[in-house]
Amino acid sequence: MADFEFLDNERLRKQLGFLVEIDKMKNVFRRTLLIDGSRRENDAEHSWHFAVFALILSEYSSETVDVSRVIKIALCHDLVEVYAGDTFAYDSEGHKDKRERELNAADKLFSLLPDDCRDEIRSLWDEFEAKETPEAQFANVCDRIQPLIHNYFTGGHTWKEGDVHAPAVLKRMSVIRDAAPELWKVVTGIVKNSVESGILKP
Amino acid sequence: MADFEFLDNERLRKQLGFLVEIDKMKNVFRRTLLIDGSRRENDAEHSWHFAVFALILSEYSSETVDVSRVIKIALCHDLVEVYAGDTFAYDSEGHKDKRERELNAADKLFSLLPDDCRDEIRSLWDEFEAKETPEAQFANVCDRIQPLIHNYFTGGHTWKEGDVHAPAVLKRMSVIRDAAPELWKVVTGIVKNSVESGILKP
Repeated sequence: MADFEFLDNERLRKQLGFLVEIDKMKNVFRRTLLIDGSRRENDAEHSWHFAVFALILSEYSSETVDVSRVIKIALCHDLVEVYAGDTFAYDSEGHKDKRERELNAADKLFSLLPDDCRDEIRSLWDEFEAKETPEAQFANVCDRIQPLIHNYFTGGHTWKEGDVHAPAVLKRMSVIRDAAPELWKVVTGIVKNSVESGILKP
Repeated sequence: MADFEFLDNERLRKQLGFLVEIDKMKNVFRRTLLIDGSRRENDAEHSWHFAVFALILSEYSSETVDVSRVIKIALCHDLVEVYAGDTFAYDSEGHKDKRERELNAADKLFSLLPDDCRDEIRSLWDEFEAKETPEAQFANVCDRIQPLIHNYFTGGHTWKEGDVHAPAVLKRMSVIRDAAPELWKVVTGIVKNSVESGILKP
């Protein structure tokens, strides 16, 4: 069995152990399909795409943001799903214990790291969840608009699967209205087109 | 067919078009297997993992690096493979026209963006390829050590597939020796263990 026992450096052993463990993100599948509709997207792919959304679209944030911080949040925002699994955005039942499941997962996963690293990664996740800083708000914008676009290009796949109607989509996207008004036009345009073309119920 | 024609903002339409196009990264498959050995890894997953490697391991760079720049390089370093495809690291035949294929792909892909965005993303890729700045060198460290670890955990999968021997692996990894000496110990330890356990030919 492969391991890093040959290293004297315990700190580095811990860091590598964490980097190996989070490979499991590539097998945590979301409801969202890839844009070509071929299969469901996983958390690692989503995190990468979200980070590039942040890199390209940060100019639309209504408050000035440290883009690098938004990108770091993107990379780490779903790590807890390695243990807690993905909870569908429109699953009210699954959301009841989501917070508790994810807090336990965070304690377990981040404690693989040396203390200072653990605190750094944990602070990125906590900031994202709290939605208070401009960076966290813009991260939430990207995290929501990315799957919206996937749904738009895949015939409303997860909306149909979850029997989600337009008002629920607009509610889910509402953070975008104030945090990135220009991107809110993307949301309303997609919802309007999707209702008109019959892929989203009014 | 879904599109963004409803937007007046041409700049934003271009940016969204680019973000949709690069979804294809999720279907560009590399030789490397996931750490659990279940399937090949794709470019989007690799780019995410590489970025987290940079975030966690940057303290081992021999020169001080702007970690955020390394992460941005990670996110964008393989984008050209959307059109140029993945070239196996040890495929000398494929490497003959790799540069030309990738330059054409870069021109085509990045020109989907508004000019200033195009230049920003292009500069990240050019910097990575030139391997001159400390950030580009440390990015190359992460880009190499990540699949090395995958190979180590998957019984030397791509080494066997490509009939790659230990000296070729050490040569491929050689950038790590000076750019991150502490990580070079990871490389030599993995190679030693892999030869001893018979998953890598001496």
